[in-house]
Amino acid sequence: MERNAALGIVKPQLTEKRFQHTIGVMDTAVQLAELYGADKKKAELAAIFHDYAKFRPKKEMEKLIREKQMPADLLFHHHELWHAPVGAYLVQHEAGIHDEEVLNAIRYHTSGRSGMTLLEKIVYVADYIEPGRSFTGVEEVRELAFQDLDLALLKTVSNTISFLLKKNRGIYPDTLAAYNDLVITKLED
Amino acid sequence: MERNAALGIVKPQLTEKRFQHTIGVMDTAVQLAELYGADKKKAELAAIFHDYAKFRPKKEMEKLIREKQMPADLLFHHHELWHAPVGAYLVQHEAGIHDEEVLNAIRYHTSGRSGMTLLEKIVYVADYIEPGRSFTGVEEVRELAFQDLDLALLKTVSNTISFLLKKNRGIYPDTLAAYNDLVITKLED
Repeated sequence: MERNAALGIVKPQLTEKRFQHTIGVMDTAVQLAELYGADKKKAELAAIFHDYAKFRPKKEMEKLIREKQMPADLLFHHHELWHAPVGAYLVQHEAGIHDEEVLNAIRYHTSGRSGMTLLEKIVYVADYIEPGRSFTGVEEVRELAFQDLDLALLKTVSNTISFLLKKNRGIYPDTLAAYNDLVITKLED
Repeated sequence: MERNAALGIVKPQLTEKRFQHTIGVMDTAVQLAELYGADKKKAELAAIFHDYAKFRPKKEMEKLIREKQMPADLLFHHHELWHAPVGAYLVQHEAGIHDEEVLNAIRYHTSGRSGMTLLEKIVYVADYIEPGRSFTGVEEVRELAFQDLDLALLKTVSNTISFLLKKNRGIYPDTLAAYNDLVITKLED
């Protein structure tokens, strides 16, 4: 699917602010794909569609999680997590995207998971560092992303877990698994 | 088993410093058991034996984890975690303690887990706050422990995860499960 066609499908699903964020993620994901030798078209497509379900009603997302046999433990965690797997489902069924690599990059862009692919890492990190983001610590990850993608991913996941800990909010097990993958691999170096 | 008999079995397994720590955990666990209505004898016994395997050689612990079908993923995590499940095994086979509640309080005293029993919580928190401990933040948990055991446990687990994150060290999934149990329960209040 061409960039403009994809953006045309996504735009009505998002607020203007979120659409601008999506453009930022797209640009960043394409740059990272170029740098790390991932498929640029897939990175572009996954980035464009990553927040496709962001503004779906909670009830609709909950229903899809239950009926489409997505991991049930999502329902015990913050609904912020839901739009990623629900998005992967809807993008397939409403936008006709069937590439599993692209769908997984959408599916795991919020939680992360153990054994992330290069494309998944790119979209996850791009979502965190796109030019519109301006929270504490983003600059460090932004620099790191163009030097060592795994280190940038580690910092992103680690910052996310720290943030949730400070807020006493639940941490999805896949997010911990993404973290452990990175530090346990590093330990074995 | 009487206190002095138990201490007599444990003492030769530990350094003097670790034996003093054990006495501290024992005193604290008994106080917490008194306060929260747990079985004081079980709290005493679990506390006395909690570090029984602390100084076993890594090779011996690794062998027991493999041969006695303990969770294999322990081997991908820091060996600091191993003495707890290995201790539960050895205490049963070398000291003849078969009370499952006591053994579980030993087994989960380092990792924590989802669905911790009152006795498990008491030993876990007592291990963290016994009078010999003097790290940053211990005073806060020490006070909390005598007001709200679950909040003290949450703070203990949360501090532990933060510490591991800062060191880029692996976090055992049971530890995350203990944390999630506490915050997800709180959310539903």
